[in-house]
Amino acid sequence: MRVLALLDGTQADPDSPLIRVDDLGLMRGDGVFETILVVDGKPRELGPHLDRLARSAAMLDLPDPDRAGFERAVDVVLGNWTGGREIALKLVMTRGVEGGDGTPTAFALGMDISPKVLTQRAEGLAAVTLDRGIEPGLMERAPWLLLSAKSLSYAVNMAALREAERRGASEVVFTTSSGSVLEGPTSTVVVARGRTLTTPPSELGILPGTTQAALFRAASRAGWQVEVAPIEVDELYVADAVVLASSVRKLTRVHTLDGKSLPDSTAVHAELAGLYESEY
Amino acid sequence: MRVLALLDGTQADPDSPLIRVDDLGLMRGDGVFETILVVDGKPRELGPHLDRLARSAAMLDLPDPDRAGFERAVDVVLGNWTGGREIALKLVMTRGVEGGDGTPTAFALGMDISPKVLTQRAEGLAAVTLDRGIEPGLMERAPWLLLSAKSLSYAVNMAALREAERRGASEVVFTTSSGSVLEGPTSTVVVARGRTLTTPPSELGILPGTTQAALFRAASRAGWQVEVAPIEVDELYVADAVVLASSVRKLTRVHTLDGKSLPDSTAVHAELAGLYESEY
Repeated sequence: MRVLALLDGTQADPDSPLIRVDDLGLMRGDGVFETILVVDGKPRELGPHLDRLARSAAMLDLPDPDRAGFERAVDVVLGNWTGGREIALKLVMTRGVEGGDGTPTAFALGMDISPKVLTQRAEGLAAVTLDRGIEPGLMERAPWLLLSAKSLSYAVNMAALREAERRGASEVVFTTSSGSVLEGPTSTVVVARGRTLTTPPSELGILPGTTQAALFRAASRAGWQVEVAPIEVDELYVADAVVLASSVRKLTRVHTLDGKSLPDSTAVHAELAGLYESEY
Repeated sequence: MRVLALLDGTQADPDSPLIRVDDLGLMRGDGVFETILVVDGKPRELGPHLDRLARSAAMLDLPDPDRAGFERAVDVVLGNWTGGREIALKLVMTRGVEGGDGTPTAFALGMDISPKVLTQRAEGLAAVTLDRGIEPGLMERAPWLLLSAKSLSYAVNMAALREAERRGASEVVFTTSSGSVLEGPTSTVVVARGRTLTTPPSELGILPGTTQAALFRAASRAGWQVEVAPIEVDELYVADAVVLASSVRKLTRVHTLDGKSLPDSTAVHAELAGLYESEY
């Protein structure tokens, strides 16, 4: 099922065209988005997601997103949802039509969680490492590369997932050319070792994770050490758990990396998943 | 004026929505495009543009574009154009709607050339160099980065143009981190020195230029040496002409780079512009 709402609080038919061909979101991938998990009618981390949408918009020199409008659209989606317990709720804002008055195109779209994601949540997945072609320092030196903005220009992220499939896996851990862990195409990498959780710093040119942040809050309260620090690929093979965190996939464990089995992380993953759920 | 045509040969209203919100071209910048110059009803380099569209589609694992369909749509745009002598004709193909049957969304859109481009063609422009964050060898090593594909994920190219404006210029020459010339965000760099024209190799991770190729054909016939070879930024300051070549801007000379005036290239540019026009 899908429910589509606009920022003025009206609903629209997701099966009918809504976007003009000259919308810069389509023509140039010029816009920003967020994907939010809704469980039993409650959006998770809505505030942090709206904050991050505003941060991405600022990086693209877009107008500040209409926060009240997005909240209104979210309410309309939730109020009209008659599907399952969980919703993947996408917020999108583009630069509007080319040569227009600068009014962004914006909407909220509620969708079912794909069966594939549900399976991966339960069973874990195989991932491959792929070079993202960025080096430490690039993000600061070249902000026009929009590293760490959640933009609509995600063709590379999608191409990386297809490459993973070609290699018999279903997800990607992007790395620097020198073998430092970055992020997944649509997820944050979290590594557990002993009682410490580690995620790479966003200064490397990656997106700060909302699900990772929620996990870190919960884990910290439960006595775990949490740290933001560089992770080398080699460390993934000796970790107690390697997890891809994102709103829709929650915490999905990586059981195989580049064709090699990782240490069994079932128990650690279950503990982390419990901590994450305790936030809601 | 704008004329919009679909691949089945029907016309559509460009002011009415045509694209669903779940089109992957919008949601993920997941698609490819070409922009073609039409003069007096004749599209320039249509064959090479359709070839390049197919090349980009292959890089994105998209279906082979419906060449006959695109040619039909182009005919419809040209047949219904009642505007000026020149048209910027955009061909777009996306991966279609998410979870659909894989049928691409595709159309041809004819638009007026912007007054800014016409001015730049006549007067030249100021450009800045910006680091593109890619190094030689990356394209071959990491094809999932889609370097040299003309995809709809152009947010970085647009951000670079805004950065140029912030620096008081209107265009960008992308470079490697080590100072080798790549391309413009929507153009090919061509350098004239003596009777030699040089453009950087596409193996660096840049788009092979259709307008540059047409210029090289014409110049070669007129006795110029033409070569595809690396160019260092320093060489731009001592060149007889630095030109940004693209379908819509034709050959636009760079008169100022990073705030420094380049040698006067008026005469060389006029000769090159004449050679390019002689192709049609």
